[in-house]
Amino acid sequence: MSSLLSQIHTVEDLRKLPVNDLPKLCDELRQFIIEQTAQHPGHLGSSLGVVELTVAIHYVFDTPNDKLIWDVGHQAYCHKILTGRKEQFRTNRSYQGISGFPRREESEYDAFGTGHSSTSVSAVLGMAVAAKMEGNMKRNHIAVIGDGAIGGGMAFEAMNQAPYRDVNMLVILNDNKISIDKSTGAMSKYLLSITTSPAYNRFKSRLWNFFTFRTNHPNKVTNFFSKMGNSVKGWLFGGSNWFQSLGYRYFGPADGHDVVYLVKTLRDLKRLPGLKLFHVLTVKGKGLEAAEQNQTQYHAPGKFDPGTGKIISSEDKVQPPKYQDVFGNTILEFARQDEKVVGITPAMATGCSLTIMDAVYPERVFDVGIAEQHAVTFAAGLATEGYIPFCNIYSSFLQRGYDQVIHDVALQKLPVVFCIDRAGLVGEDGATHQGSFDLAFLRCIPDLIIASPLNEHELRNLMLTAYQNAKNQGLPFVIRYPRGRGVLTDWHNDPKALPIGKGQMLREGEKVLLLTLGPLGNAVAKVLSQLEAEGIRAAHYDVRFLKPMDEEMLEKFANRYSVWITVEDGTEKGGLFSEISEFLEKHVFSNRLLHIALPDRFISHGDIPHLYKEVGFDEEAIAGKVREAWKM
Amino acid sequence: MSSLLSQIHTVEDLRKLPVNDLPKLCDELRQFIIEQTAQHPGHLGSSLGVVELTVAIHYVFDTPNDKLIWDVGHQAYCHKILTGRKEQFRTNRSYQGISGFPRREESEYDAFGTGHSSTSVSAVLGMAVAAKMEGNMKRNHIAVIGDGAIGGGMAFEAMNQAPYRDVNMLVILNDNKISIDKSTGAMSKYLLSITTSPAYNRFKSRLWNFFTFRTNHPNKVTNFFSKMGNSVKGWLFGGSNWFQSLGYRYFGPADGHDVVYLVKTLRDLKRLPGLKLFHVLTVKGKGLEAAEQNQTQYHAPGKFDPGTGKIISSEDKVQPPKYQDVFGNTILEFARQDEKVVGITPAMATGCSLTIMDAVYPERVFDVGIAEQHAVTFAAGLATEGYIPFCNIYSSFLQRGYDQVIHDVALQKLPVVFCIDRAGLVGEDGATHQGSFDLAFLRCIPDLIIASPLNEHELRNLMLTAYQNAKNQGLPFVIRYPRGRGVLTDWHNDPKALPIGKGQMLREGEKVLLLTLGPLGNAVAKVLSQLEAEGIRAAHYDVRFLKPMDEEMLEKFANRYSVWITVEDGTEKGGLFSEISEFLEKHVFSNRLLHIALPDRFISHGDIPHLYKEVGFDEEAIAGKVREAWKM
Repeated sequence: MSSLLSQIHTVEDLRKLPVNDLPKLCDELRQFIIEQTAQHPGHLGSSLGVVELTVAIHYVFDTPNDKLIWDVGHQAYCHKILTGRKEQFRTNRSYQGISGFPRREESEYDAFGTGHSSTSVSAVLGMAVAAKMEGNMKRNHIAVIGDGAIGGGMAFEAMNQAPYRDVNMLVILNDNKISIDKSTGAMSKYLLSITTSPAYNRFKSRLWNFFTFRTNHPNKVTNFFSKMGNSVKGWLFGGSNWFQSLGYRYFGPADGHDVVYLVKTLRDLKRLPGLKLFHVLTVKGKGLEAAEQNQTQYHAPGKFDPGTGKIISSEDKVQPPKYQDVFGNTILEFARQDEKVVGITPAMATGCSLTIMDAVYPERVFDVGIAEQHAVTFAAGLATEGYIPFCNIYSSFLQRGYDQVIHDVALQKLPVVFCIDRAGLVGEDGATHQGSFDLAFLRCIPDLIIASPLNEHELRNLMLTAYQNAKNQGLPFVIRYPRGRGVLTDWHNDPKALPIGKGQMLREGEKVLLLTLGPLGNAVAKVLSQLEAEGIRAAHYDVRFLKPMDEEMLEKFANRYSVWITVEDGTEKGGLFSEISEFLEKHVFSNRLLHIALPDRFISHGDIPHLYKEVGFDEEAIAGKVREAWKM
Repeated sequence: MSSLLSQIHTVEDLRKLPVNDLPKLCDELRQFIIEQTAQHPGHLGSSLGVVELTVAIHYVFDTPNDKLIWDVGHQAYCHKILTGRKEQFRTNRSYQGISGFPRREESEYDAFGTGHSSTSVSAVLGMAVAAKMEGNMKRNHIAVIGDGAIGGGMAFEAMNQAPYRDVNMLVILNDNKISIDKSTGAMSKYLLSITTSPAYNRFKSRLWNFFTFRTNHPNKVTNFFSKMGNSVKGWLFGGSNWFQSLGYRYFGPADGHDVVYLVKTLRDLKRLPGLKLFHVLTVKGKGLEAAEQNQTQYHAPGKFDPGTGKIISSEDKVQPPKYQDVFGNTILEFARQDEKVVGITPAMATGCSLTIMDAVYPERVFDVGIAEQHAVTFAAGLATEGYIPFCNIYSSFLQRGYDQVIHDVALQKLPVVFCIDRAGLVGEDGATHQGSFDLAFLRCIPDLIIASPLNEHELRNLMLTAYQNAKNQGLPFVIRYPRGRGVLTDWHNDPKALPIGKGQMLREGEKVLLLTLGPLGNAVAKVLSQLEAEGIRAAHYDVRFLKPMDEEMLEKFANRYSVWITVEDGTEKGGLFSEISEFLEKHVFSNRLLHIALPDRFISHGDIPHLYKEVGFDEEAIAGKVREAWKM
């Protein structure tokens, strides 16, 4: 059997195929994605779910002239393969390879870079308004957005503005009932209700077909419906009224795996001007049985067997736990002892391991969906009532809840505990997901306690400290820790509360002092131990808290160590290096200050060892910096 | 005629009144607010609009045990007066007086502090969930939110989560068709459609009354409706389906100025458990004709005649223009010359004077409603198409669009121009609105140009610089400037483009160097001029750009001036002081560094002179700092 995919190098090649060949092409594409992703791990489930949709869109629309934006973008593998990146696809997410998300600099087919959720409608609306201002009403503007992402406030803001602009925009709602974890919220319940009423849908579908698709005069149909009163439309299409009440013409729900039907429908929609919402039902992980059965695990499964789907575990030896699991197990311990402990996360329950507590106390765990803003203020509301909310958000996603941290939590001194996962470099997910900025954007907020643990024991200690602080109506408390594994296999200590604002001396020494914040301190400790053989006897202090800073201790150090090196896995603009620079300037100390931190530029994707080498976080670079300081 | 208001000291006093006295009390309250606000300026229009609603809520519900949150909170004057703050009300918004917004530390009746929009549903949901977890299903939880605020993404996120929690929550939608400017977006259009269909509303209202309010068994009614299929409900209540599709029982629309009817309806709603939305129609500025006629101007009119409503202008002499007006006039000039120039603002069109351009080019001005996140990414979408979006957002509100600045604009190097109004201290609006953090939270973002003008000419020069930079596909560009007036009456210069990253020498001198950013530089210039009489000859350099910093120039200064003083109207943690501290540390200069900046705490409300004195921004404090430096 000859391969169709091997003949497809550009979307032009795709468009030459007869429509009846598309199902076969979809099968080949799916198989290609499975084989590639089995070896080169990535976001499998979402990409398998939109194979037919991707083929149909590029087949029908005139990309890249027509604008296509993939919301979040982790489902864009098929899009990348069809738009000239088939050969490079084996480098997906690897260092200096192609990105796992659309990026404008990678291809003209990537109309807008994505990574964070719910941005697509805003961006494509900007493009659609631009076309309208130029009098170009032919160009099409398409956002593909999931049922999880459309619940994000930002998407609603954009959907809300759109109907006031007479523009060509097609929002394709890719409804698979799941984001990473199961979708939550009224919106997803509502979508379920309108997709599980077969009689109603058959009727509506026939009616739309009759009026809309069987005529060469779509505008007349539009006008006909416009002239009908809202109440009549509401009666006919009541179930889809949520979108219609916002001014969108609603079409669907459609089977998202019937590529021929999708092509037919998209061709019809292409002829209809204005604002349209096309509701497509897909199955996450479609075509790989294991992935369909276990959608959360196969969201990004790592390496697996492309035939059976079996996930390949390379973990023979006992390894330290992930920080997220230490968080998950520890909050469950606290929850067992105090019924006021609650867990909150905006759609990261699996990723932050809040699922561990959810399995035991589902009524005290709140996955609020993709809604960072709401998550923070909801936690603040619970805190006013004496609850102790542990609000878990990834570093780069907390950027979405920034105002709420300032305005609703810190300003009111409400004792919310923020556990910031994925702080520092995250690796393969790249620039959109690196947790580079949280130390800087949090340090400037008054009345916030900011800490980072050296290791798993310290994470548990800090969580207990934050818990007790909250119990005593203390200030809001941030604990930030990285993606991935810790350093201790024997992680389950008996946690003890720590003094707020105090660090710990990890190594005595002379002349040179390393001031570290967070787990990078472990690499520093190892390096300093090795450097003793060279006669370098640098001291090492784990500051633990960025805020409040232990200035008394720093004053002692100022007289004891002439050269300081700050080490942090965050930007050099605004975090620990800034704090210590300000301290030295304010107190007129003439100590030399070097720093190891992320440079002031966006850091692209790749595996952590490569990235660490690039930014100078590897042991060799740290050793070099210490040697340099020792010679000063 | 005896006064009812004089007898009301607490809500308990209010609850003793017979319901028929309430209309008279409302009249008195309204008069009291008008008289007080005429002398002590504040948010007049919104507070006049909710007099009856406020009285009815406190009359019916058991506040402070029942939780009441005022979204935004500028409409809470009547609430403050009824809850023990009648005497203090004359200190409203003044230095060390009561706040213009609810604050938890001010009263137990202020269940949650507000100021920024769209937070109320999240916070009250947290409280409602807390009550539910304690098995308390009697307590009521009420959020009063405007038709503008409910379009904010955050409110949608909260509305979306709520139906999954079986809690007691009443959202009162205060629909006056206006936020500060006219409400925009599909939501407001939809609300208009359901409030202007009288036949439908009469029918629905009667039906609800029949089933709901005339029985002692509200649960039975609920169950009855639950058993009806969605399609039937959709038919009966089609117009209000937007809320119902999200799981809310919808009531209304009701006349928000009929206090007796409001009391009756709220009593009925109090007996119904679960999630309810009560749609109330009010008139902003109700009771003061001038305010009803001109709602935008009377949102916060300043001093006025309490009888006629005539605004009292104390501006006899020619004054410098407001920075916002310089922005507004300048963008219009650019728009006239280049059709690619567009203006975007999330609901601040009047406050930022984008109205000036809107009057001439309405099709190129986009007030997207209370939707900061969307505003930023919408601007990014326009920028991809070669448009030059000037996106105007107040400093404290940009906190809401922070992720979008990083993820959608800076990461993609899209040449959006951000004009950040209300940067630095804003005065009477207080802690929620102070623009204290933008320099810190923006400086850490790579690939961003950040500037602040010394005066009106410089604002125009920077706008031209940003325009040309965008035209040449340069980096995104931030221009931040304060609330209020500039310093030049002759503000209309012929703008010229400036070199990016370069400042200007304002005064030569010796030993001491003042490095200023933004309009505080004018106070510094005046002080330095005065200090010459004392023989103090300090130099003065306006850095203009926080980023990129002109390090070459700083190196020259390092050898020339031994003591530096940074001056900025932003927090001392992360802005100019941090930048210069880092510079001196990195380049091993031993110059002394002092700083004038906002302290690391939240700054409360009051008039600018008092606040400036408090934080050391007044001329005396500046002079003191320079003298101190001169002696070093």
